[in-house]
Amino acid sequence: MNTADLGLPVDVPSTALFTDQYELTMLRAALKAGTAGRRSVFEVFTRRLPDGRRYGVVAGTGRVLDAVENFRFDADVLRFLREKDIVDEPTLDWLAGYRFGGDIWGYPEGEVYFPGSPIMRVEGTFGECVLLETVILSILNHDSAIAAAASRMSSAAGDRPLIEMGARRTHELAAVAAARSAYVGGFATTSDLAAGFRYNIPTVGTSAHAFTLLHDSERDAFRAQVDSLGRGTTLLVDTYDVAEAVRTAVEIAGPELGAVRIDSGDLLLVAHRVRQQLDELGATETKIVVTSDLDEYAIASLAAAPVDAYGVGTQLVTGSGHPTASMVYKLVARESTDGGPLVPVAKKSSGGKTSVGGRKWAARRTGADGHAEAEVIGTGAVPADLTGRQLLVELVRGGEVVAREPLDAARDRHAAARAGLPLSATQLSRGEPVIPTEYATEGSGN
Amino acid sequence: MNTADLGLPVDVPSTALFTDQYELTMLRAALKAGTAGRRSVFEVFTRRLPDGRRYGVVAGTGRVLDAVENFRFDADVLRFLREKDIVDEPTLDWLAGYRFGGDIWGYPEGEVYFPGSPIMRVEGTFGECVLLETVILSILNHDSAIAAAASRMSSAAGDRPLIEMGARRTHELAAVAAARSAYVGGFATTSDLAAGFRYNIPTVGTSAHAFTLLHDSERDAFRAQVDSLGRGTTLLVDTYDVAEAVRTAVEIAGPELGAVRIDSGDLLLVAHRVRQQLDELGATETKIVVTSDLDEYAIASLAAAPVDAYGVGTQLVTGSGHPTASMVYKLVARESTDGGPLVPVAKKSSGGKTSVGGRKWAARRTGADGHAEAEVIGTGAVPADLTGRQLLVELVRGGEVVAREPLDAARDRHAAARAGLPLSATQLSRGEPVIPTEYATEGSGN
Repeated sequence: MNTADLGLPVDVPSTALFTDQYELTMLRAALKAGTAGRRSVFEVFTRRLPDGRRYGVVAGTGRVLDAVENFRFDADVLRFLREKDIVDEPTLDWLAGYRFGGDIWGYPEGEVYFPGSPIMRVEGTFGECVLLETVILSILNHDSAIAAAASRMSSAAGDRPLIEMGARRTHELAAVAAARSAYVGGFATTSDLAAGFRYNIPTVGTSAHAFTLLHDSERDAFRAQVDSLGRGTTLLVDTYDVAEAVRTAVEIAGPELGAVRIDSGDLLLVAHRVRQQLDELGATETKIVVTSDLDEYAIASLAAAPVDAYGVGTQLVTGSGHPTASMVYKLVARESTDGGPLVPVAKKSSGGKTSVGGRKWAARRTGADGHAEAEVIGTGAVPADLTGRQLLVELVRGGEVVAREPLDAARDRHAAARAGLPLSATQLSRGEPVIPTEYATEGSGN
Repeated sequence: MNTADLGLPVDVPSTALFTDQYELTMLRAALKAGTAGRRSVFEVFTRRLPDGRRYGVVAGTGRVLDAVENFRFDADVLRFLREKDIVDEPTLDWLAGYRFGGDIWGYPEGEVYFPGSPIMRVEGTFGECVLLETVILSILNHDSAIAAAASRMSSAAGDRPLIEMGARRTHELAAVAAARSAYVGGFATTSDLAAGFRYNIPTVGTSAHAFTLLHDSERDAFRAQVDSLGRGTTLLVDTYDVAEAVRTAVEIAGPELGAVRIDSGDLLLVAHRVRQQLDELGATETKIVVTSDLDEYAIASLAAAPVDAYGVGTQLVTGSGHPTASMVYKLVARESTDGGPLVPVAKKSSGGKTSVGGRKWAARRTGADGHAEAEVIGTGAVPADLTGRQLLVELVRGGEVVAREPLDAARDRHAAARAGLPLSATQLSRGEPVIPTEYATEGSGN
């Protein structure tokens, strides 16, 4: 089915098109060579965190499950692949019946990760696994990058709520995923209606400068807004003169005025002045929302200011300097020629980008103070003292998704996982990963 | 209609959901106040280019036209807005019949822009225009950011083709728009099948390290690939030892081998060695493709290297350091109370973010050498010497799209627009916008 009639700006008929061409040409060649059926293990991991970051945040897992479950080659897609001569007829036949039938384990959504963490493990035949590379990486790289920024911002904001309002700064559908990731990372609400519709994230929003400018005076605009939305609304007070706007706002809405929003200027200074003015006018319960070009550092710098909520746009949806995680999807083990046991494989050239072969487990070792002290990764048997601290959970078994959960579960898990890290995890300053990654050698019991 | 059954990772029923909630609450309040029908002019512009950039590139215009044309509030969306109590019943009734009926003019896709350029102008009632803010900005901010990076990369690459391969580094649907923007900016091909399907952009791709690792030897892998894809294929030669891989590749495919790909290491050094080796083996026509973490600077640094094509991923889809343009959508004029002429409006607070009121024209003045020398922006009458150099074209008339064009038209337009700038436009080093923005005062004939 083609979705062109829905008028979406980007229409695709299936998640199977979120695929780089080489995955199909590899499949084609492997089918011809008789190697496409070899049992294979692919792992998603990152060689490093973005420069200076203390931890990563897994996000997008739920979206990956949707994408894998619906990864099908329908008639439209097959016709396209045939017309463009991307694959041959035997491959088209194989694709027509494609349905992922393997197993996926991974870090649950909201969990934190470190360099080398096997964030997701996909196991099945080479053919069925190799096709999922791009869609899995697209989702995890984007969503995890946003969630990591969101997590730092929510640390900096403490108990004050964060509003996601970056839709206008990123692709219209990336924005929906960004709002979802922000929620996982600790944001409270979003301005994006599509995110509210799709993921039931609470939505907020009142008015912009255009609304004030539409009316003949700021007073007319405020009155129109309060008449329609009630005294609990948030009035935007920086279109003309802030002090005059605050006076007018309280005059019209009374001390029951819900909040005022400040969207420009020296927020620290203006927030203090506005708080004092509101208090003097008796609007002691009226809240102050600030929304201008905030990132985690600006949020932290306002910790002592009389601010009640932060709205964050650009820096959230662009990952606050790191718009993508650098996760890769690598073949780490495959069946030996004779259908025997899995053998570890890894790229070995001297040019860098090497990886550790073998099917991995991961566990987070905890110190005496109850906080994490190392991310331990190994192949083979899990040491007895770490069996209860393993990080990978089963997500897909024989092609069936077994780990659906509400988004709040991921949000709660993230808060708990972050709280389990050493305190320095939430320092905003640049530094090394807050816990080291250790590789356990097989059978060492380390 | 709900698209959940399509299994897209992000399902929305209409482009009308790509909207920040405040647009609907402003509409609600304006309807109640009787001001929603005031004729209004909104303009999209940016106050500055990303730091150090010489010019911007308009991209996404075609996608904006799709989004506006299909911006409807269907039953699912109305039910959501009612359930969440975002708007009242009169507003729901108004939305149920919504269809943009105004006019849109704008810089055509592929054109370059500068600070203050009125990239798009949306005119109609306040109510019908205010709703389009988020979807228009999402598309233009994302797509233009990618196109600007693509344009710099294609300048740096000269006649050598660029392959877009960043899908795995960004949201799966942002990736499709990114491939489209890259094409507008001068890229030749993409690895993203969805972009090939949706926009008919030529797609490419052959194999990854996983394919080599799947097989018992590199020789087996190369043979399998050549058997299936032919001698004209591109073999990836850096899984183990590059020199040995090149030898094996030519042995198997013969001198007709299409290309080798190098994805790691010191590309300058390795490319020279591989070229020499290929030539010694008689494979003088075999091309070299490089693909490791390239940006415009890395591409430029390889200008003297024997490289035939570049594959670019992360840095393309993240805008090479600038993942979003900073375009805003501002009310610049509206009907006066009595239904009379439009009056210019603008935010005026001291806190920055001010803008220039009034409905604008723009023209690019050309110097004696035939190159652009200024972006001239004004309100009122266009000076006679600039009437033939105006930049805004009609895109939508009375709600009907009047400016559809094939993507190649935007790509060609961009190449021509860039060629019309002073030569320093394509310097990669940081600098000021390559031409100044001048504001013509009305009637000055300046």
